[in-house]
Amino acid sequence: MKQYPSILLENAVAEFSKLPGIGSKTALRLVLHLLRQSPAEVELFSHSIEQLKREVHYCQTCHNISDTAVCSICADPRRDRSMVCVVENVRDVMSIEATQQYDGLYHVLGGIISPIDGIGPHDIEIDSLISRIIPEQINEVIMALPTTMEGDTTAFYIYRKLSGLDVKVTTIARGVAVGNDLEYTDEVTLGRSIVNRMDFKG
Amino acid sequence: MKQYPSILLENAVAEFSKLPGIGSKTALRLVLHLLRQSPAEVELFSHSIEQLKREVHYCQTCHNISDTAVCSICADPRRDRSMVCVVENVRDVMSIEATQQYDGLYHVLGGIISPIDGIGPHDIEIDSLISRIIPEQINEVIMALPTTMEGDTTAFYIYRKLSGLDVKVTTIARGVAVGNDLEYTDEVTLGRSIVNRMDFKG
Repeated sequence: MKQYPSILLENAVAEFSKLPGIGSKTALRLVLHLLRQSPAEVELFSHSIEQLKREVHYCQTCHNISDTAVCSICADPRRDRSMVCVVENVRDVMSIEATQQYDGLYHVLGGIISPIDGIGPHDIEIDSLISRIIPEQINEVIMALPTTMEGDTTAFYIYRKLSGLDVKVTTIARGVAVGNDLEYTDEVTLGRSIVNRMDFKG
Repeated sequence: MKQYPSILLENAVAEFSKLPGIGSKTALRLVLHLLRQSPAEVELFSHSIEQLKREVHYCQTCHNISDTAVCSICADPRRDRSMVCVVENVRDVMSIEATQQYDGLYHVLGGIISPIDGIGPHDIEIDSLISRIIPEQINEVIMALPTTMEGDTTAFYIYRKLSGLDVKVTTIARGVAVGNDLEYTDEVTLGRSIVNRMDFKG
């Protein structure tokens, strides 16, 4: 057990250690790094996170992080407003946007159904998704949820909720990653990619 | 190149990305984690680092981080005041303290001589070390500096500066780590451990 030479240092290290994937050694390294910076730089650091927490908005339509009441994707008139891609969190939106292959809208659930963690359907943005379908005249809901038990449960729950509505439900393709060897692909993924094989486009 | 949905988010991620070993993906993960916490918890986080920066002291004797003008090690009457262990930074003090094998004093240089980085002997706490020797009646200076070109340069510089004074200069033992296989020990370490072999205590 290491002794910290200062309570203030120990407090700061304890706060950094609460971050995911940051142990006490890394936390100490980060805190000592900040301590070597100028007071102005440290203030810039701590203010950036305080300001974000205080002033950030979540888009009232899709619940993506935004600087305004409606996010830039929902506000963009060039997007295809007939389809909505359902994702777990903001990072997934950023990942899909980075592909530049999708020009529809999003719906950020803010989590997935997980009974073990006490997260039920009403703790995440499922009702608000269902209520978007008719007024926004959405034709297609694309599921881009994790391929875990929880992700599958959430997708199935949403699928059931959408069953009465005139909307097509699709899911993103799962298969062998581009450039990956079959040999090193896990069996579930390889199995799915054979079952869901597509017509060869020569 | 990923697009951030919010300038505030982008700013916070940019600030976290400045930390050593934190890339933009990890920074985003950390920032989104903080964003999920309560405002009080985020404030606790940002205040801990601001308070540390604002209120931390460096011990006026050994330059260790401290909550007071003189650190708890220098103020401890049970420590052996005849020897001083010279280290690069505060983390080294904590590592040596954690061994519970040393009860002397320390001197934290706050860096090492590195011409490439523009760090000369007067940018680090060497003069204050030399001026401690006579008034504090120090008999032994133990070098615990990194085994790099810069560490060796710094140790040699201090050794030369101490040469006129009646003080023993030693260095911590380098050798094969306890429990390590010889096979996986680097050649330089293994070489030093043979050259500096010790009498066998049966």
